[in-house]
Amino acid sequence: MGVSREKVFNDFSAWYNDVIEQAGIIDKRYPVKGMLVWRPYGLRIVRAIEKIIREEVEKTGHQEVLFPVLIPEDEFNKEAEHIEGFGNQVYWVTHTGETPLEKRLLLRPTSETAIYPVYALWIRSHKDLPLKLYQIVPVFRYETKHTRPIIRQRELSHFFEAHTAHASPEQAEAQILEDVEIMGVLCEKLCIPFLCHRRPDWDKFAGAVYSIGVDTILPDGRVLQIGGIHNYLQNFAKPYNITYETEDGGHEYVYQTTYGMSERLLASLIALHGDDHGLVLPPQIAPVQVVVIPILYKDQNQEKILEQVETCKKKLLSGGLRVEVDTREDRPGSKFYDSELRGIPIRLEIGPRDVKLGQVVVVRRDTLERVATPVNNLLDGVRKTMDDMTRDMREKAWRTVRDRVRKVGGLDEAVRELETGGGIVQVEWCGSETCGHRLEDETGASVLGLPYPEQPTPLNSCVVCRSKSKHVVSLAKTY
Amino acid sequence: MGVSREKVFNDFSAWYNDVIEQAGIIDKRYPVKGMLVWRPYGLRIVRAIEKIIREEVEKTGHQEVLFPVLIPEDEFNKEAEHIEGFGNQVYWVTHTGETPLEKRLLLRPTSETAIYPVYALWIRSHKDLPLKLYQIVPVFRYETKHTRPIIRQRELSHFFEAHTAHASPEQAEAQILEDVEIMGVLCEKLCIPFLCHRRPDWDKFAGAVYSIGVDTILPDGRVLQIGGIHNYLQNFAKPYNITYETEDGGHEYVYQTTYGMSERLLASLIALHGDDHGLVLPPQIAPVQVVVIPILYKDQNQEKILEQVETCKKKLLSGGLRVEVDTREDRPGSKFYDSELRGIPIRLEIGPRDVKLGQVVVVRRDTLERVATPVNNLLDGVRKTMDDMTRDMREKAWRTVRDRVRKVGGLDEAVRELETGGGIVQVEWCGSETCGHRLEDETGASVLGLPYPEQPTPLNSCVVCRSKSKHVVSLAKTY
Repeated sequence: MGVSREKVFNDFSAWYNDVIEQAGIIDKRYPVKGMLVWRPYGLRIVRAIEKIIREEVEKTGHQEVLFPVLIPEDEFNKEAEHIEGFGNQVYWVTHTGETPLEKRLLLRPTSETAIYPVYALWIRSHKDLPLKLYQIVPVFRYETKHTRPIIRQRELSHFFEAHTAHASPEQAEAQILEDVEIMGVLCEKLCIPFLCHRRPDWDKFAGAVYSIGVDTILPDGRVLQIGGIHNYLQNFAKPYNITYETEDGGHEYVYQTTYGMSERLLASLIALHGDDHGLVLPPQIAPVQVVVIPILYKDQNQEKILEQVETCKKKLLSGGLRVEVDTREDRPGSKFYDSELRGIPIRLEIGPRDVKLGQVVVVRRDTLERVATPVNNLLDGVRKTMDDMTRDMREKAWRTVRDRVRKVGGLDEAVRELETGGGIVQVEWCGSETCGHRLEDETGASVLGLPYPEQPTPLNSCVVCRSKSKHVVSLAKTY
Repeated sequence: MGVSREKVFNDFSAWYNDVIEQAGIIDKRYPVKGMLVWRPYGLRIVRAIEKIIREEVEKTGHQEVLFPVLIPEDEFNKEAEHIEGFGNQVYWVTHTGETPLEKRLLLRPTSETAIYPVYALWIRSHKDLPLKLYQIVPVFRYETKHTRPIIRQRELSHFFEAHTAHASPEQAEAQILEDVEIMGVLCEKLCIPFLCHRRPDWDKFAGAVYSIGVDTILPDGRVLQIGGIHNYLQNFAKPYNITYETEDGGHEYVYQTTYGMSERLLASLIALHGDDHGLVLPPQIAPVQVVVIPILYKDQNQEKILEQVETCKKKLLSGGLRVEVDTREDRPGSKFYDSELRGIPIRLEIGPRDVKLGQVVVVRRDTLERVATPVNNLLDGVRKTMDDMTRDMREKAWRTVRDRVRKVGGLDEAVRELETGGGIVQVEWCGSETCGHRLEDETGASVLGLPYPEQPTPLNSCVVCRSKSKHVVSLAKTY
């Protein structure tokens, strides 16, 4: 049971663009292409997500730092692959006032080249390791692909990036696993299903030894990457000269990893849970968890109703819930419409009949089910409804995503499946880059990489070259 | 009673630069002049200050938004005074990759010109007013004056700016008063004494009708502006075409104000409270409020001590305090040194004798007074000590600043007082700009402006031209 998602599935792009503006998440009319304004309601959701991210990464020993937005050209130019990957996307600052700068500065597209010169100063001894720091900052990438609000911006306003340094490759590897676990905890709270893939070499992060992409599937069947976890080993430590003194007095380069996430977490939870009435927000991150709407009639005893509204509000506040009473001069119907558009998890309706019966009508946003609840059991009732809703949202989203991942036996079938059902189609692959590119060319999709961690599966032959296959590989049309 | 502040007063600049680096607030070795790295401990203090700011401004109905860092040149060029004031300090983005941009972009030095084109879209009717929004963001100013960590940066990492729009000049004026009140609440919590001045016309914010500067006096006798409150009336509404429909269907330009603050709040509380041992942090914003240090001897029963440490930690945590146990392998003396450097408000020392007596030694950071406290009264004892400390810090800082404000009768005396005692020297003034500039030239100090709100005082004659004076005006050497 649930509210119709016809519009979401039939024309995802139009639905998405509408709902993020109408629900007050962002305004895309800012006069620079690919940059947008975060409105109060949207920003409150972002802050709630950030709070969860901070809690989770701090539990695992990460500390927050803040590096400047501007990076000097010579620091940026130290790691060759990184320059190649980001060079064309860089915004260059060349002047202050009308005076040319002696040394050009760039706006960070990501912060490796800002942070690592300072890591070279901070890390001296094995006692300084592991070093686990993160920041949440705006980054700037001149995207040439089609921009799309929150999903692909030229200014990403809230880019999370963790940068760790370790004494051994094993510890760096363990960090990658910890990052995947953190993603699991986050996505459980945010009700976002995800799959990890070890990206093919031709699609790894610029400068990484390997990259794990964290992917989800949007309602239009295209895959959105919502996180990136990268093992650099010593690729940056060498050009940036980040060394440490080992216990026996030698000197070694550190081993590094990074972990990146962005507002795409918000975009995907909007896309995965929204319906034809608007947003559906998981209670944990909803800026307003409960909206109370008095149903007033002119001839009835309005005072009693408003009293009951006040009682309910106090009860819920005392339980630490985020509550709003909608006292605007407007029809109840229009208030219902609003609360649904904004995705408020719980709506309480209180009318003359409810006052008589000492009850409240509790409406949960995901199903719009209405349950009359005695006022003296309100707090427990609302809490339980929020828990049920969270669990159901999580399970339903996981089912939807899981149903869109399937393995097929041949290339033609893969093309057909991608065309009709979208999502992720898996085939067997010999592992060669030539066959990988052929896969992409023939299907018009991207190779997401190998499911991570890789599952042991009985294998036959590569769908391209028919030689013995080594892996199951995922294909999808991507954002 | 208190700890020596000899170093603070004798060579403030050296003391300040040392303490902010050694206590782990910032690192100034970032390879771009005037930009710095916020280290974990410093950033936690900044976040605590931001939390207070957010609470206070949201109480008064402000909502948080987030606008892009980059502003298109044509939007920036709409208000003439504003361009003149900021034009030379602007960082220009001219290229992406190697391709010149069609339209140059600038890094916001402040966000009027980013926000107001969007206000023109958001504000339609008198029902949309007042509009009270704020953001906390990095801003960029190519300062040509001597830069100084946290005090004068080319990237201000945490710039608070509130932008309000109103239906009448009276409401804009009332907003200015509300802003001054908010500053009062903030500064009470942060234990920062301040004075407001209505800046002279030649020193108001670029584009404002008038500006209120919020000033404090650092230990070297120089004044630091820690906030700016500006009434624009319709100066921006006209070029940005921000109008609203009045109740009777007419159209009018809105009246606007802004309120700015930055990390200087942190700089000033470090400067006003620090002593020769290091930082002294007001308990409310200290990342660690209580550090517990076990005093262990080899031959004694260490287990009992560690048990008592654990008991105390739990008690304090249960009271919601931020507690850290210093379990590093190090001498207690070195741990004391560290806790004082970092300004942790309360230190608990627990040794063999304390275990025997069921007590703990509570040391408060501002006075280093040591008081033995029974374990079963620990939480109340620590809370009371923190309250006493906050009150004493606030009062002491206010006394110090108040003592450095004095009125003198003539120009020579003003010069002498500024030379010897620094701080703020007040004289009588006719109000003419000519005499104002003469005051600055003769004293080598800046005119801070008229104390705000202005106090009625019996007046004689202007210390420059000897004509009838109209105001008492403040002079000071400034940062």
